[in-house]
Amino acid sequence: MNSAPSSTPAPSLIDLAYDPALFQAAGEALVDQLTQHLARTQAGEGPVLPWTDPRDNLAAARAQLAGDGLGRPAAVDSVESGARRFGELVKLALARGHNLHHPHYVGHQVPAAIPIAGLFDALGAVTNNPMAIYEMGPWATSAEQAMIGELGGYLGWKDPEGGGIVTHGASLANLTAMLVARNRLLEGSWEDGVRGVASAPSDKSPVIVTQADAHYCITRAGGILGLGTRQVLKVPLDSRRRMDVTRLDELLAELARAGRPVIAVAASACATPIGAFDPLDQVAEVCRRYGVWMHVDAAHGGAALLSRKYRGVVQGISEADSVTWDAHKMLFVPALCAFLFYKRKSDSYEAFRQNAPYLFDPRAPELMDFDGGLRTVECTKRAMVLGLWGVWSLFGPALMEQLVDRTFDLARTFYEKLTDAPDFVALHEPQCNIVVFRHIPARLAAASNGVVGAFQDRLRRAVCQSGRFYLVPCVIDGVGALRCTLINPKTTPADLDELLDTLREFGARDAAV
Amino acid sequence: MNSAPSSTPAPSLIDLAYDPALFQAAGEALVDQLTQHLARTQAGEGPVLPWTDPRDNLAAARAQLAGDGLGRPAAVDSVESGARRFGELVKLALARGHNLHHPHYVGHQVPAAIPIAGLFDALGAVTNNPMAIYEMGPWATSAEQAMIGELGGYLGWKDPEGGGIVTHGASLANLTAMLVARNRLLEGSWEDGVRGVASAPSDKSPVIVTQADAHYCITRAGGILGLGTRQVLKVPLDSRRRMDVTRLDELLAELARAGRPVIAVAASACATPIGAFDPLDQVAEVCRRYGVWMHVDAAHGGAALLSRKYRGVVQGISEADSVTWDAHKMLFVPALCAFLFYKRKSDSYEAFRQNAPYLFDPRAPELMDFDGGLRTVECTKRAMVLGLWGVWSLFGPALMEQLVDRTFDLARTFYEKLTDAPDFVALHEPQCNIVVFRHIPARLAAASNGVVGAFQDRLRRAVCQSGRFYLVPCVIDGVGALRCTLINPKTTPADLDELLDTLREFGARDAAV
Repeated sequence: MNSAPSSTPAPSLIDLAYDPALFQAAGEALVDQLTQHLARTQAGEGPVLPWTDPRDNLAAARAQLAGDGLGRPAAVDSVESGARRFGELVKLALARGHNLHHPHYVGHQVPAAIPIAGLFDALGAVTNNPMAIYEMGPWATSAEQAMIGELGGYLGWKDPEGGGIVTHGASLANLTAMLVARNRLLEGSWEDGVRGVASAPSDKSPVIVTQADAHYCITRAGGILGLGTRQVLKVPLDSRRRMDVTRLDELLAELARAGRPVIAVAASACATPIGAFDPLDQVAEVCRRYGVWMHVDAAHGGAALLSRKYRGVVQGISEADSVTWDAHKMLFVPALCAFLFYKRKSDSYEAFRQNAPYLFDPRAPELMDFDGGLRTVECTKRAMVLGLWGVWSLFGPALMEQLVDRTFDLARTFYEKLTDAPDFVALHEPQCNIVVFRHIPARLAAASNGVVGAFQDRLRRAVCQSGRFYLVPCVIDGVGALRCTLINPKTTPADLDELLDTLREFGARDAAV
Repeated sequence: MNSAPSSTPAPSLIDLAYDPALFQAAGEALVDQLTQHLARTQAGEGPVLPWTDPRDNLAAARAQLAGDGLGRPAAVDSVESGARRFGELVKLALARGHNLHHPHYVGHQVPAAIPIAGLFDALGAVTNNPMAIYEMGPWATSAEQAMIGELGGYLGWKDPEGGGIVTHGASLANLTAMLVARNRLLEGSWEDGVRGVASAPSDKSPVIVTQADAHYCITRAGGILGLGTRQVLKVPLDSRRRMDVTRLDELLAELARAGRPVIAVAASACATPIGAFDPLDQVAEVCRRYGVWMHVDAAHGGAALLSRKYRGVVQGISEADSVTWDAHKMLFVPALCAFLFYKRKSDSYEAFRQNAPYLFDPRAPELMDFDGGLRTVECTKRAMVLGLWGVWSLFGPALMEQLVDRTFDLARTFYEKLTDAPDFVALHEPQCNIVVFRHIPARLAAASNGVVGAFQDRLRRAVCQSGRFYLVPCVIDGVGALRCTLINPKTTPADLDELLDTLREFGARDAAV
């Protein structure tokens, strides 16, 4: 095939690439390899993160593209050679990828996903049923609407009054919510721009209010939406790193006196650094008093609604005007699958307004709610909800409740271990499954903050690069710390004992250097 | 399991959901069903779109969630029952989804994706290796960087000078490019907002310039970025619906005289309605003369660079400052996988600026290029490139060239068929694989535009709802038309003959009503 001169028609690679027999052989190889990989990693075999310098990994990824070294593809010219090479590529990718299913993965707010959810997701990928309009992904759209109704019910926002969209991540969901709030408050800003809005004279810049630990995407939203990142004001935190409601009240009073429009108050449930939940019922009361749009970034914590034991942490969330909730965090499906809920469905049409007659048919208004592209920043959108719809259809909310309870419980257990250990300091009592702490061996008991912080950072790198655990860095009050999210349901209390011992071991080595 | 009272600990659904044996059984069932489904649909069996009223599909999707009708999940309590129910759910989803692999799918710019690409994608989903930072998805990041280098090479923008990102769709890629251009031109607009920019007094609103047929997301970008949709100015089209370069020149001269800042000129390659490519080399010459940022939305047409036969349609693209190019269109991988390229890599850091010490480690600057979240609107981002990296590693660019050539060639064939048919009118000579036309049976030869347009619309609906073909509506010069994208490589000239006959058949039925 490769030796054919370019002037004669090449034998069709298309026929091979689309051959169902190749798909079948490759698919069977994939399932086989993934099954073994899951079994091994869940059993704790091998490294968590097989640390490799990114330049080395990049060279390895490029080498595959180069094929025979002459810029021609490797000699794939049959179902057999194609399936064989597919298997090799999968093996390479698995060997160099991160193993979130390893019980020693205690890192970012990205779960060891329910494996079978990835299979439902694959159904959407192979058949490629994306959704800007209902016709293109009729079942994906229906599964999405069904899950919007199901999760919205936990918020108390049921169709037809409440509404929602699904978008590619919480950053986009939060941006979309801020855009709706901006368009509503600054009448005409969509069409005429932020500077063209007569209701907001130039010395009275509109603001977004959030709290000091809010995810960076809220500040980014201010930058993107033309308001300016400096117009994103941050309410100070209380002693538990939650939005201080008294300070919120004072800030809104001050802004009202100054005549500055408040686009929204964006509360966190929870904020990323230590997983602290703002007191939503109190925030709601203040927002109501000032007539301000209340948004809740519950990307991580929305799932607490499914737990009878833990739903108290989001008390008051139903008072919000909009809520972000990621299924790809605490509903344990693969990224991305982010929900944005609106208390009033009509608000969802405030974000974007456009005319695309080749897409949206105004002659069929009853279908408009099913043509999601009218309400999402994406035009073509991936069939994101199939994984969640699938596991929900298999296991129901009972599985989700168990996942929330197990991981939240485990964080409490970890906290107790930390407080019992003389050489560890927990920086907070966990409200969910995020725990921030420091290892302070006796020799550092009197060390400066700078020394202690730098030690946490070295320690983390050494442990992660050893492949024995994966945890993440954090800075609290200007000093480095260690941060764990317990987001793998196969992690046990014994694993956490081992984590502390591993940190001690690497800490001692650090001293010996 | 379902009969256990809630006060006693429920048997663990977690253990079942994460059981590798369930994964294996379900995975094998999935591969089996998908293989059969692909074989059937590629052979043209069954409907293209199994048209169902969205309310009926929604009810069906909800019914699965309801389980036993008491809000409890269906009785899944073993690997066997789990795999069985998984198979039923897959069967349901396949029966009600759109069949893009059917040769009679000639609809939107969403391809009948290379099936094996979906398997590489599934690898990313099951292992859940998303990417905001290198550590979380080391291999996914490396594959992405490798493909940025590979595709960037076709633009002539090679690392280290050129750079790129991958994001969830062309709407976001275009938005990000416009944001970079805004931040560069309106110094301080990121921090202080669009209204706070001293360099742009209030009577001189900054504008984005595009063309009349540009994708709606360009106008939306104006709305989102706080510039205002009315500040997105549209250059009129020439006789081939391309940006009229003389009119562009005049507009930029007028704006310069008025002192209005021009953030960017966004050209189309191609525009969606009829697939017309702006004359990029001429656009570039004008932009250079006025010192304006040139962006090219080549979401669909970027792939022409891979075709020796067709790359002339994007002549001049290398002169741009930024280029959007969707792999999930003409590189035939599943949605979403959109590239945004920058001629100067440093520009990619202009889009967003934030401080998230728990994510990005300033002590390792050499890793910054690998921490993609600094440069994308998403924080957690899906491992989008695995499918493209996989098929490229298997088949190389030769496959992509064949796909472009076959589908572009087919559009020319279709155009010839239309011009040969007395009862069809092609509205343009195709530049790529998009063809817009009308069916005008003899009885409508003298009908008004309104009657002709409404007929196309009824015709399309009837044909699509019959399941025999899927094509899309379009409005050209205010009159309804039919639109095909030939984006399934298994579609043959004989299928297109059948399409014309089917339209005639339904057209005759329409007359009989």
